[in-house]
Amino acid sequence: MNERWSNEEFLARLRKVGALHYHDKHPYHVSMHEGKLTPEQLRAWVANRFYYQKNIPVKDALILAKLPSREERRRWIQRIIDHDGREGTEGGIEAWVRLGEAVGIPREEMLDERHVLPAVRFAVDAYVNFCRLEPWPIAVASSLTELFAPTLVSQRIGVLEQLYPWVRPEGLEYFRSRLHQAPRDSDHGVEIVMRECTTREEQEKAIAALSFKCDVLWALLDALALAYPNKEAVLT
Amino acid sequence: MNERWSNEEFLARLRKVGALHYHDKHPYHVSMHEGKLTPEQLRAWVANRFYYQKNIPVKDALILAKLPSREERRRWIQRIIDHDGREGTEGGIEAWVRLGEAVGIPREEMLDERHVLPAVRFAVDAYVNFCRLEPWPIAVASSLTELFAPTLVSQRIGVLEQLYPWVRPEGLEYFRSRLHQAPRDSDHGVEIVMRECTTREEQEKAIAALSFKCDVLWALLDALALAYPNKEAVLT
Repeated sequence: MNERWSNEEFLARLRKVGALHYHDKHPYHVSMHEGKLTPEQLRAWVANRFYYQKNIPVKDALILAKLPSREERRRWIQRIIDHDGREGTEGGIEAWVRLGEAVGIPREEMLDERHVLPAVRFAVDAYVNFCRLEPWPIAVASSLTELFAPTLVSQRIGVLEQLYPWVRPEGLEYFRSRLHQAPRDSDHGVEIVMRECTTREEQEKAIAALSFKCDVLWALLDALALAYPNKEAVLT
Repeated sequence: MNERWSNEEFLARLRKVGALHYHDKHPYHVSMHEGKLTPEQLRAWVANRFYYQKNIPVKDALILAKLPSREERRRWIQRIIDHDGREGTEGGIEAWVRLGEAVGIPREEMLDERHVLPAVRFAVDAYVNFCRLEPWPIAVASSLTELFAPTLVSQRIGVLEQLYPWVRPEGLEYFRSRLHQAPRDSDHGVEIVMRECTTREEQEKAIAALSFKCDVLWALLDALALAYPNKEAVLT
């Protein structure tokens, strides 16, 4: 039986998962942030990523149902509200639909999921089922890609503004909201994982959960790279 | 294959389930509303019913995770907020804890569930699992005891005020909140069930779901009646 990691060591190992496997290192994502995606490739990313976005409140409701106390639920429910919206706020799913419109995807094409690739569906459904079936601290651990999101998202706003000037600026609202939502969410997530994963075995399961989540995001981009190949790469 | 019922007929049949099987007809409940429960019996009801109350947001989160659209979730989530509360509002679970204090159950005795009878736990857990496992329109149908709740709850406020004057009046806040929450919830529930249960088979499953839910509430009172028998009945 291996000794448990200190909280510092544990958190460093969680961060290392992101440093090695977060989807910012995927070639499709690298191309996006270098301004090299064609409009069709960027639209494909937005339309496919929508399937991930729309399932976020589903996986969060599954985790909500498992949280052991009213206090934890009162904090976690904000994630669902952030994405679904409430009266007077539209929420992240609607903001993503508007991002779609800003890149030229009609609302109905986004909502009917006609552009969603099978492998994207499989990966996202696997994530939802992971949250349905795993113990709640491990499901929470899988959400810790939020640790790495704010840096990437703040870069992405600049990337879209400067390298894809044809994207209408009102489409970027989703990313702006996430700049303050993601750090709050990852703080809560880290708090839960540090408190609940107290044996080495649980700590290792949390690491594996975060790796799994990185695989989900990576698989989404693999599917896009295969369906929307880089023409230059094919020619060289 | 039997013909589907009209919405009027379907709703009438749902109401009939309540007329026949809602827990207001259980002897323990009848005694409560006749002012005949001893303080110990009333306290037992409050402490055991708490296990039902605390599981309401759990079953509602399970249903939330299955609802097919953001629009439905935006309405349904209010149920969870009503019970868990948010910043600035305490919510129904805390209100029930205060009802406990108002009848003389210390907060810690309520929260540690020491008074919760095994059969109460089984019945409530069965309800949560029903909502976890059944299709969402059928899970929603099981919530339609809300159709019958407002009448009973408004009577209960008067009953507690007049027949149990030793109950501190601030304990009744839970019931006052339900007077406007339950009709809003049952309106939404009826709307969903009428829209989604369109074949006779689905309509019959909805009826069965509501009967099942009445059985859950009934079993809770059976357990109480057995554990806290009416002394008069034993003597006669």
